[in-house]
Amino acid sequence: MPLPEKALIAQIRRMVDSSIRRRNGRPNRAVLTGIGDDCAVLRLLAGKDSLVTTDFTLEGIHFRRDWHPPESVGHRCLARGLSDIAAMGGEPLAVFLSLALPRGLRQAWVGRFARSLISLAEKHGATVAGGDTAESPDGILADIIVVGTVPKGKAILRSGAKAGDRIYVSGELGGSAAAVVRMRGGRGKVKPRDYVRHFYPEPRVELGRVLREKKLVSAMIDTSDGLSTDLAHICEESGMGAEIDSSLIPRACVGKPAREVDLDLALHGGEDYELLFTVAKENRIPRHIAGVAITQIGQITRSRGIFVRNPKGVGYELHPRGWEHFRK
Amino acid sequence: MPLPEKALIAQIRRMVDSSIRRRNGRPNRAVLTGIGDDCAVLRLLAGKDSLVTTDFTLEGIHFRRDWHPPESVGHRCLARGLSDIAAMGGEPLAVFLSLALPRGLRQAWVGRFARSLISLAEKHGATVAGGDTAESPDGILADIIVVGTVPKGKAILRSGAKAGDRIYVSGELGGSAAAVVRMRGGRGKVKPRDYVRHFYPEPRVELGRVLREKKLVSAMIDTSDGLSTDLAHICEESGMGAEIDSSLIPRACVGKPAREVDLDLALHGGEDYELLFTVAKENRIPRHIAGVAITQIGQITRSRGIFVRNPKGVGYELHPRGWEHFRK
Repeated sequence: MPLPEKALIAQIRRMVDSSIRRRNGRPNRAVLTGIGDDCAVLRLLAGKDSLVTTDFTLEGIHFRRDWHPPESVGHRCLARGLSDIAAMGGEPLAVFLSLALPRGLRQAWVGRFARSLISLAEKHGATVAGGDTAESPDGILADIIVVGTVPKGKAILRSGAKAGDRIYVSGELGGSAAAVVRMRGGRGKVKPRDYVRHFYPEPRVELGRVLREKKLVSAMIDTSDGLSTDLAHICEESGMGAEIDSSLIPRACVGKPAREVDLDLALHGGEDYELLFTVAKENRIPRHIAGVAITQIGQITRSRGIFVRNPKGVGYELHPRGWEHFRK
Repeated sequence: MPLPEKALIAQIRRMVDSSIRRRNGRPNRAVLTGIGDDCAVLRLLAGKDSLVTTDFTLEGIHFRRDWHPPESVGHRCLARGLSDIAAMGGEPLAVFLSLALPRGLRQAWVGRFARSLISLAEKHGATVAGGDTAESPDGILADIIVVGTVPKGKAILRSGAKAGDRIYVSGELGGSAAAVVRMRGGRGKVKPRDYVRHFYPEPRVELGRVLREKKLVSAMIDTSDGLSTDLAHICEESGMGAEIDSSLIPRACVGKPAREVDLDLALHGGEDYELLFTVAKENRIPRHIAGVAITQIGQITRSRGIFVRNPKGVGYELHPRGWEHFRK
């Protein structure tokens, strides 16, 4: 692929090649042929279904180069895909990166981006097995594809919630959006260490796998678009409604000095990449699973619509408000 | 995914949903869960390897909206991925489309783009099973992912060419680049029907499958970057060289009135999506396979480098010159 930015492309290839070779020490036998042919060839174990997810990460929409260090962009790019695999109870296997780079981008940026992405993949046992490289007409454009596996017929869908099921969420909500609000507020850069959940979100792969193995969960989704939107997806796909208690929602503590985020951010802020799931009421869920706090926030109802009750017992209907990332 | 262009996104989803439902008449049982969950769930038959390929199609790089009708963009977008599957001797199974659209794009454009893409997928027995949608910071951005299958261990790689193997190419070369040269030459739009191979390239899926089944081929690649670059890939991956005869190269006849393209375009022009493959010299190849003309153009050599001989017997070394698509 002879491009003006040949050197950058070659660098990516070398890094990915060497990641594949490193994996060959502890072989990921599923990846028979990686970069360097027309397709990657994967061999899955018998008795498994495959999972496939794709997610764009576009400069100016999902990140800003002046706000996000390259390590954060690489990490968040892959975290989005890994989180989708986690939400099915799956295990990631192979990662494909389509990457378009604008002319004049510094080589150091690409190196830091790719190292961070590859390191997150390795942490979760996945191999970067291929992708595409192109020149971008404007800005950095990445599309990440993650292929995972799950035992046959055991993928956890959004559609399995039943009336009376309890609703749980992992970790804390609103922490990622709080960073965006602060940066948008004209105060520009914030320190990644004060907003780790925004800059380096940890996809809940291990938690998702454990929940699937324990057969506790009736429906699951990750909170990429925000609680109000993602809970609406579960309700819609399951043909149910929900009631949540605003005082139970685990709100993130972020910033410096750290403070709890507003309820609004916890309800509507996206990109926390926590797991939101439902459990039949006869099942018990521990308060921590795989090292992550689990909080019950409400229950599934037969009547449609999502209602929020506050501690005074006053209720209102919650409409999905979603999440617009970073419009410049 | 609440975006300003909600209506466009909803339209894509509806079209893809209805494509999946149509498939359910003749079910593609490999796609258990398509759009509408965190991941697509695929179930492959036992005894198969999976193939994965990803390809960007970016406005201003791979197409121009003022030159390419939306049907051509949708077709070419998927043809790139299907051609990679063909080059492994595989069969396409599921297609994923990541699509970012700029504000203000007309709904009709998206409809025509998507219909063309879905119709090419259906023609090749593949289901559009998911993807991602986003707002684009600038221009239309698409990334196509095709998942295919091939019997275990039977994928045809680039690396299997041996000294003495004959080199063959399907169809004709240079026809796609000829359209680009004409459009770049300032004469703007050309009629798609005069340059069909550029606007609606036919991926050689059936040919690739037949070649794999007949066990005739030692190495294969598709001519997406141009003969000089793609033959260099086979030579490099196989640790060999090659000799080709310029008078044997099948040059496309395009334009109106139709004329044969220059040798230079046939050697270096990309995006013809033909198959370039090598065959042990004791094997015989018919002149047509699966309705496509097959032409012998040279042989693999032990000594490195690629040499072109002309009818007078004079030779020169061929360097990969590659293909830069559409820089505005």
